[in-house]
Amino acid sequence: MKNGLLIVVSGPSGAGKGVTCKRLKELAPDIQVSVSCTTRDPRPGEVDGEAYFFLTEEAFNEKIEQDGFLEHAVYLNHQYGTPKDYVLGMLESGRDVLLEIEVQGALMVNAHYPEAILMFVLPPSLEVLEQRLKKRGTETDEQTRKRLEMAKKEIELLKSYDYVIKNDEIDKAARQMLAIIDAERCAVKRNLDLSKRLLQGENIL
Amino acid sequence: MKNGLLIVVSGPSGAGKGVTCKRLKELAPDIQVSVSCTTRDPRPGEVDGEAYFFLTEEAFNEKIEQDGFLEHAVYLNHQYGTPKDYVLGMLESGRDVLLEIEVQGALMVNAHYPEAILMFVLPPSLEVLEQRLKKRGTETDEQTRKRLEMAKKEIELLKSYDYVIKNDEIDKAARQMLAIIDAERCAVKRNLDLSKRLLQGENIL
Repeated sequence: MKNGLLIVVSGPSGAGKGVTCKRLKELAPDIQVSVSCTTRDPRPGEVDGEAYFFLTEEAFNEKIEQDGFLEHAVYLNHQYGTPKDYVLGMLESGRDVLLEIEVQGALMVNAHYPEAILMFVLPPSLEVLEQRLKKRGTETDEQTRKRLEMAKKEIELLKSYDYVIKNDEIDKAARQMLAIIDAERCAVKRNLDLSKRLLQGENIL
Repeated sequence: MKNGLLIVVSGPSGAGKGVTCKRLKELAPDIQVSVSCTTRDPRPGEVDGEAYFFLTEEAFNEKIEQDGFLEHAVYLNHQYGTPKDYVLGMLESGRDVLLEIEVQGALMVNAHYPEAILMFVLPPSLEVLEQRLKKRGTETDEQTRKRLEMAKKEIELLKSYDYVIKNDEIDKAARQMLAIIDAERCAVKRNLDLSKRLLQGENIL
């Protein structure tokens, strides 16, 4: 059984990671979305086990000690982490797994799992990013300002990623992600067995 | 102006390079198809300047001496070559260029132009490949046998390519090529300017 693809979507807060991944999941329902753990408070309407597993600081730290995360990071005073066994198990069973995580965390995943496909979602401009953060309306001006400063630092890390998605229209951005996944399935580095199998007389379809 | 993409499609004779590229061109009419030069005789219905420019041995060798080819190779006693100025000029003007060429030639393009995207078209099985070559009906049994032997040697070169296309259905194969082109347009290595432009306050769309 060939391993599934580990698709990591990241980018600054307000770039539109969440909505784009949601649309991608509609377009490609076979992709398994990994649910992260966090110590931040749920936003209005967020249900435990859907967008996130909401853990206490104590429970989160215990999971770190047990080496239970593929990556974990602190972001604006809260911890975020990707449950390791869950993701690796899915990949080994041949399923493609989508992680929507923070920029630091994505680079940590890549260090542990270099076959991961790293996508960075960018807003059309910093102005649009600021508007989106303000529109969200769940944060104070001070929180928005901090997120914007953080975004600028994160954008400098684009060069460590594989692909960039300019997120102007959600549907278009999701379809670009889908094209990248299709292309990566065709990458020779993931299909080195094909020439041997073909030459042995096998049907490779 | 950003350079266009150089898309190189290759694979053994009978894998279906030609029909797949034709369909790709229908799906993406903006892609410029490069016309190669060859010293082989036209097949019934082939017009000079469409599938190929048909040159005499003398004219072909003169063009080699003038360094007029991006790649050229001998394949089953005939010469094939890609006119250099034409292709580089198109790329510099921002157009994507499609080359449908023999396996040796594709590797030579990659050596001269490493940004090229190399796609290898495979048949579902050697059996299907043989059937397709026989069905073509333009060649003797001896020619078919030679092409099949050549194909086996070529298939071993898959590992030097970027992407593999399993060609079972023409339309599906062409759409995979299109996904690869879309994905390559999003590759960070081709968009390293974006983070700087964004941080300078530019709109990057």
